[in-house]
Amino acid sequence: MTGAPADVRDLLLSRIRDVPDHPQPGVVFKDITPLLADPAAFTALTEALSELCVRHGATKVVGLEARGFILAAPVAVRAGLGFIPVRKAGKLPGATLSQAYDLEYGSAEIEVHAEDLDSGDRVMVIDDVLATGGTAGAAAELIRRGGAEVAGVAVLMELGFLGGRGKLEPVLRGAPLEALLAL
Amino acid sequence: MTGAPADVRDLLLSRIRDVPDHPQPGVVFKDITPLLADPAAFTALTEALSELCVRHGATKVVGLEARGFILAAPVAVRAGLGFIPVRKAGKLPGATLSQAYDLEYGSAEIEVHAEDLDSGDRVMVIDDVLATGGTAGAAAELIRRGGAEVAGVAVLMELGFLGGRGKLEPVLRGAPLEALLAL
Repeated sequence: MTGAPADVRDLLLSRIRDVPDHPQPGVVFKDITPLLADPAAFTALTEALSELCVRHGATKVVGLEARGFILAAPVAVRAGLGFIPVRKAGKLPGATLSQAYDLEYGSAEIEVHAEDLDSGDRVMVIDDVLATGGTAGAAAELIRRGGAEVAGVAVLMELGFLGGRGKLEPVLRGAPLEALLAL
Repeated sequence: MTGAPADVRDLLLSRIRDVPDHPQPGVVFKDITPLLADPAAFTALTEALSELCVRHGATKVVGLEARGFILAAPVAVRAGLGFIPVRKAGKLPGATLSQAYDLEYGSAEIEVHAEDLDSGDRVMVIDDVLATGGTAGAAAELIRRGGAEVAGVAVLMELGFLGGRGKLEPVLRGAPLEALLAL
């Protein structure tokens, strides 16, 4: 958990909606669209994540396609840091690094432009949800393979019952994993 | 074309890279990732698009999945407007409106949460590129079907040789179509 004030956390939590049985029966989806539609809440979220970037000395921000883009891009602009998109395989037009990771059934692959990462960079990975940690871990691997350092992973909410923190922390090798809300 | 200063347009243009033969042979892809990686350019882009939202009286901002999210979200935060994601079919968890549109071969479908649109809203659609105008036109239809008004469409760059403006303007029914760069 981070040092975001309790009133900010309360505001953010009040704008996240539970959607039962999405994307499949038995899953309760945490829908952030009410938060995005509320300028006060979206601004507070942007400021809290930006503050984490500053605190951990980030020089660039990675956004994970697609919802991570929505959170990470305003943070990059607000904090004055470069924005790096990490996309699903085949979307980026330039020379890429690719990293596969396991899903519940099967696997997936994400990519980054190799030229977006330099040896002096400290990169913060931003996403909306920490679930199993697979995507964030793969992003951390990409950052290191590009020669940069992982400044940390920062998410709006951590779904603790999925155990993502326990899987992701070894991959982060001491870099911080910050969640504004623990659900 | 908008009233963005010439030095801003020069800066933005200098950060867009041509990638030949992507996503298919014969196509020159306009890659904005160098712009996103440059905080000064990304900030200037955000400010220019925000200014268009203010000028045209927008009360909400639509971002089109996925690259449109990267541009529209910082604009929403900067201008203090609600952000509405328009996504590919099947991604949004709540009750949606859907709109099909034609692609070069076949068709595609985009969706919006119905509750994100109200009768008093004036919604600006933001995307990186105006190509054939199909997605932006479908987004305009969604906004009107949701009972809101289209404040306009604002893009970073318009690919004039594809003729999107001629197809999109009738759909916009007088709402402005703004492009920071005409390529």
